[in-house]
Amino acid sequence: MRATVIHAPHDIRVQEVPDPAIQQPTDVVLRVLRACICGSDLWAYRGESARQPGQRIGHEFLGIVEEAGSEVAGFAVGDLVVAPFVWSDGTCAYCAEGLTTSCPQGGFWGSVGSDGGQGEAVRVPFADGTLIKLPAAAAADDHLLTALLALSDVLGTGHHAAVGAGVKPGSTVAVVGDGAVGLCGVMAAKRLGAERIIALGRHQARTDIARTFGATDVVAERGEVAVEAVRELLGGEGAHAVIEAVGTEQSMRTAVGITRDGGSIGYVGVPHGSGTGLDLGVMFDRNIALRGGVAPVRTYIPELLPDILSGTIDPSPVFDLTVGLDDVPVGYKAMDGRTALKVLIKP
Amino acid sequence: MRATVIHAPHDIRVQEVPDPAIQQPTDVVLRVLRACICGSDLWAYRGESARQPGQRIGHEFLGIVEEAGSEVAGFAVGDLVVAPFVWSDGTCAYCAEGLTTSCPQGGFWGSVGSDGGQGEAVRVPFADGTLIKLPAAAAADDHLLTALLALSDVLGTGHHAAVGAGVKPGSTVAVVGDGAVGLCGVMAAKRLGAERIIALGRHQARTDIARTFGATDVVAERGEVAVEAVRELLGGEGAHAVIEAVGTEQSMRTAVGITRDGGSIGYVGVPHGSGTGLDLGVMFDRNIALRGGVAPVRTYIPELLPDILSGTIDPSPVFDLTVGLDDVPVGYKAMDGRTALKVLIKP
Repeated sequence: MRATVIHAPHDIRVQEVPDPAIQQPTDVVLRVLRACICGSDLWAYRGESARQPGQRIGHEFLGIVEEAGSEVAGFAVGDLVVAPFVWSDGTCAYCAEGLTTSCPQGGFWGSVGSDGGQGEAVRVPFADGTLIKLPAAAAADDHLLTALLALSDVLGTGHHAAVGAGVKPGSTVAVVGDGAVGLCGVMAAKRLGAERIIALGRHQARTDIARTFGATDVVAERGEVAVEAVRELLGGEGAHAVIEAVGTEQSMRTAVGITRDGGSIGYVGVPHGSGTGLDLGVMFDRNIALRGGVAPVRTYIPELLPDILSGTIDPSPVFDLTVGLDDVPVGYKAMDGRTALKVLIKP
Repeated sequence: MRATVIHAPHDIRVQEVPDPAIQQPTDVVLRVLRACICGSDLWAYRGESARQPGQRIGHEFLGIVEEAGSEVAGFAVGDLVVAPFVWSDGTCAYCAEGLTTSCPQGGFWGSVGSDGGQGEAVRVPFADGTLIKLPAAAAADDHLLTALLALSDVLGTGHHAAVGAGVKPGSTVAVVGDGAVGLCGVMAAKRLGAERIIALGRHQARTDIARTFGATDVVAERGEVAVEAVRELLGGEGAHAVIEAVGTEQSMRTAVGITRDGGSIGYVGVPHGSGTGLDLGVMFDRNIALRGGVAPVRTYIPELLPDILSGTIDPSPVFDLTVGLDDVPVGYKAMDGRTALKVLIKP
């Protein structure tokens, strides 16, 4: 089959690789219908996250079960399923708690020896613990299929941030980051009943989507000026719930600055850079909590799926460029150059 | 009157100061019956927290109302009351939310221009928003009075840490710090229903108190070895709820190391030192939350007081040395040299 392979920073190729096959009786092989490129893939692309030459890449996909191992109970050939961005065994204490990302048998698509999502097919370990079934009819609905793809990462990650930030009905929320995760954070906050949602971002195409998703205010400034602007909107105080969807030292500093005393930062931006940007003295004096991390999206899918199917939420606008499999490298270039927000792949 | 004054690092004196008097109609003047020295007072004593020469000191006290301003509604002359370690107006949005430590009109005893607790009397601003009445009969009960003094800071702070750490019935808890706050954290965790409580500390007199307060295990090691020891006790995992009651970079690192994936660190140790000790990458991968800060003990007193009065909890063992007012400097020396855990003052 053909799949995306990362050879070196900025050297992403679509090439022939061995066809996936059942290796364990709990595996399925999945034919990929939709995949996409994540902002976090760019860290590998830019060489800021180390990869071995030849590793696969891509961790967001949905598709059709093509083959199922003998011990797979929940899925049959032909089922339409979505994969969360990590696999998990579904039987350990962490999976039982819903923290599927800490499953000791879990793993990340594209890690050494595993398939990535940006290819024609994927071998899925622990299929029963990992995959979630989608209505078969969705396979014929191009728009719905795109919306459902957001369940594999960005929507669940935005939801995790909103949960970590403690968003409740009536909450005032501020969202740092206008990438696909930040925008899904806006959508998740709205869905959880937030009354006022301030989106920080200076790309109008993106903040326009934020408004569609539920943002009531947009702050285009950055750093200290952004902090002042948010506080001015909120009568001198910060927001009770702040979503941090970037992961840099500066974005974390901004998040602390715009959090109301006693509030929480739900952080889902993968931390990078040497410093944390957290001034613990400030957080201490103001009782600011920090809660989040890698999102156990597998746990959230059953809650979020019905709202997509009913049309209550539609995250598909985060995908603003569509490529075929051969053009995945073009998609990386577009996201790296910020000419695309999030690239959809139709293999 | 006589009160404790800090002139310079290691220069603490008990001397004549002006008698406190009603300045605002919402003030009361309190005759101090019991006060004490806090571990955080030592930062001023050691010169690690700046003080202006001549500032008062001490923020934990209880006593008798000696004079009440014309607008004080809740207290009359002769009432026995306890003061939390900050004053608060009781009328702002933060006070209404229970975050009295963020009250814009609030302040810290011993700050420039205000009285400190380690003296014969204190002018209390916003008495109705600040003080809590105690049963009059307690004034004649020396042991009970000592236990009640813990409400002004250490017990409420330990409780704040336990709440921040998310202690619930059946929780497994680990406590970093064997000072009075850490010990009260053990007591608070037990009170909230924790099933297993691991106290980290290597001073046997202190860990013996921890056991009396509810610790089921003691780990005497420090740093990486302590992390290993806690994980060994818990079958290779960390504790769901971790109380951080020290505030150094090393103690925070230990706290992260002994927290189970998906768990929370309730932090109440005043942060000092340049680094935070927080490895945000590790916290992200393992979904570790951080929640705490300066404890709004005023809010907790009504919940904790009945348990002291009924004898369900007795925090008095954290006071292991008693001095008169003139010997307050001796008390500082003893705590600085770690020969005393916490010093009780009977003016």
